[in-house]
Amino acid sequence: MKNQYAIGIDMGGTNTVFGIVDNDGHVLSKGSIKTGTHADINLYIDELYTELSKLIDTVGKENIKGIGVGAPNGNYYTGDILYAPNLPWKGEIHFAQLMTEKFGIPTALTNDANAAAVGEMTYGAARGMKDFIMITLGTGVGSGIVVNGKVVYGHDGFAGELGHVIAVREGGRTCGCGRKGCLEAYASATGVARSAQEIMTKTTKSSLLHNTPLDKITSKDVFDAAISGDEVAKEIFNYTGKILGECFADFVTFSAPEAIILFGGLSKAGDLILNPIVEHMEKNMLDIWKGKVKVLFSDLKEADAAVLGASALAWEM
Amino acid sequence: MKNQYAIGIDMGGTNTVFGIVDNDGHVLSKGSIKTGTHADINLYIDELYTELSKLIDTVGKENIKGIGVGAPNGNYYTGDILYAPNLPWKGEIHFAQLMTEKFGIPTALTNDANAAAVGEMTYGAARGMKDFIMITLGTGVGSGIVVNGKVVYGHDGFAGELGHVIAVREGGRTCGCGRKGCLEAYASATGVARSAQEIMTKTTKSSLLHNTPLDKITSKDVFDAAISGDEVAKEIFNYTGKILGECFADFVTFSAPEAIILFGGLSKAGDLILNPIVEHMEKNMLDIWKGKVKVLFSDLKEADAAVLGASALAWEM
Repeated sequence: MKNQYAIGIDMGGTNTVFGIVDNDGHVLSKGSIKTGTHADINLYIDELYTELSKLIDTVGKENIKGIGVGAPNGNYYTGDILYAPNLPWKGEIHFAQLMTEKFGIPTALTNDANAAAVGEMTYGAARGMKDFIMITLGTGVGSGIVVNGKVVYGHDGFAGELGHVIAVREGGRTCGCGRKGCLEAYASATGVARSAQEIMTKTTKSSLLHNTPLDKITSKDVFDAAISGDEVAKEIFNYTGKILGECFADFVTFSAPEAIILFGGLSKAGDLILNPIVEHMEKNMLDIWKGKVKVLFSDLKEADAAVLGASALAWEM
Repeated sequence: MKNQYAIGIDMGGTNTVFGIVDNDGHVLSKGSIKTGTHADINLYIDELYTELSKLIDTVGKENIKGIGVGAPNGNYYTGDILYAPNLPWKGEIHFAQLMTEKFGIPTALTNDANAAAVGEMTYGAARGMKDFIMITLGTGVGSGIVVNGKVVYGHDGFAGELGHVIAVREGGRTCGCGRKGCLEAYASATGVARSAQEIMTKTTKSSLLHNTPLDKITSKDVFDAAISGDEVAKEIFNYTGKILGECFADFVTFSAPEAIILFGGLSKAGDLILNPIVEHMEKNMLDIWKGKVKVLFSDLKEADAAVLGASALAWEM
């Protein structure tokens, strides 16, 4: 059999990263462009075409099975990107269709967290699993839910928005979506920074974080301080882990996954975030699940994971 | 083609109802025994065998495709009933295996709410739907989740315990499962009675419910009073509907269903419970789902629904 290749494109708010992947999951070549340069989607696709063509020429277009795209607010059923707040194009963008026309290669699209879940199942920590939940902890909190070996897309293609379950029902923080108390308002990078502000305002303990003005503390600062053993920074991670663990217990109630897999910035905190998550998940689960549901970190290289995940969509076409 | 039949068995804490169903979903004959009579599971199965054999003889055992059973804590993967608090047999009961051996007919088993979901999809309000959630509001609160036309069983066969998501995180009521704040502690028949007690203690309004001692008020009393226009009884339904609606909004976030279908005692309250559910579900959903997710009542005859649902399992074998 001839070698076949897939293209994976990970569209983020800042950068669009793309690569050519072989069927063993090796990223053969990669490139990137800025997502925000072109206010006109067609010009963005033109630039993507120019850059990607250089990579495609090295393997031959006839050997490319398809293009998979992970994009914020991407809809698998329609191939559209809908009202994505962090992208320059407003309204409904028929992205998969535009790509298929421009490249002459079939293109499938899903949201970035679903793409990560497919990548994890195909190449990563979820290999061999049929039921798991991928949680992406980054600028926002996303999720990809896999049931019986398939991503859950739901009736309309938008299933798996677990960053927007209500984690704190009374007096919850305002979320970017306009509602209050969403998990994302606590467990995203911004959420951790907000927790830092709240906890720093109340604490009487000494902390490395006192060196930074309250409104300038980032999740990275909390991470650095916690790694150095800072007690207040650890407390901030404990609080974040508690909220995540409580929500995870509810997620288990829904789909009884074998594992919940963490991906993205916050997961770099390792045991500092894992331990409180597991503690509070276990405390909040029904007895039938106690000790049975794994919480794991993605084992895909972060730089490749999103591209791999998106490319895995192409193999499914 | 010869007529084929399936047997449906609905095992409740009090009664076990069974029937023979044809492939058009007609219940041809029915019977029942008491669930709690025999402390020995084998004697229970003996009695079931004696009673069911009378029905089986009328259509011929060779024409029976299979037996489907809906049972509390029933596990689809193993065919076992595990530690069901409301059944007389403790520990792990290999029910499907015991039935197959006794009857010489292949037997499949799932929990009662999953059976109801299958019944609804095969014969009821969810015909033609591929993504919906069945919520059973009875002595407890159960759920059956259907994604892409299949019941979600999860890694271990126990998925879909939505009565045990945490509806009230701070200061929630103790639930029968031993944890605090579960949806079931608010939306079950007992939950409604508890809400009645709480609200009656605080209210200064006149109410028909004042005629009943506080600790004797049942969900049926609340229903009767609300139907007569009693304002306090309506307030109790509003409160129950608010809790349900808030949880439903989170469920939508997970699987983006076409509909959430209500079954069981509380659903008889009609608009009294439906209106607050829809109001609070809409208020709590992300914009992308507002106005798009139906909340429906089961349209199966309650007396037949559980038997139909269980029998539908047999067709899937």
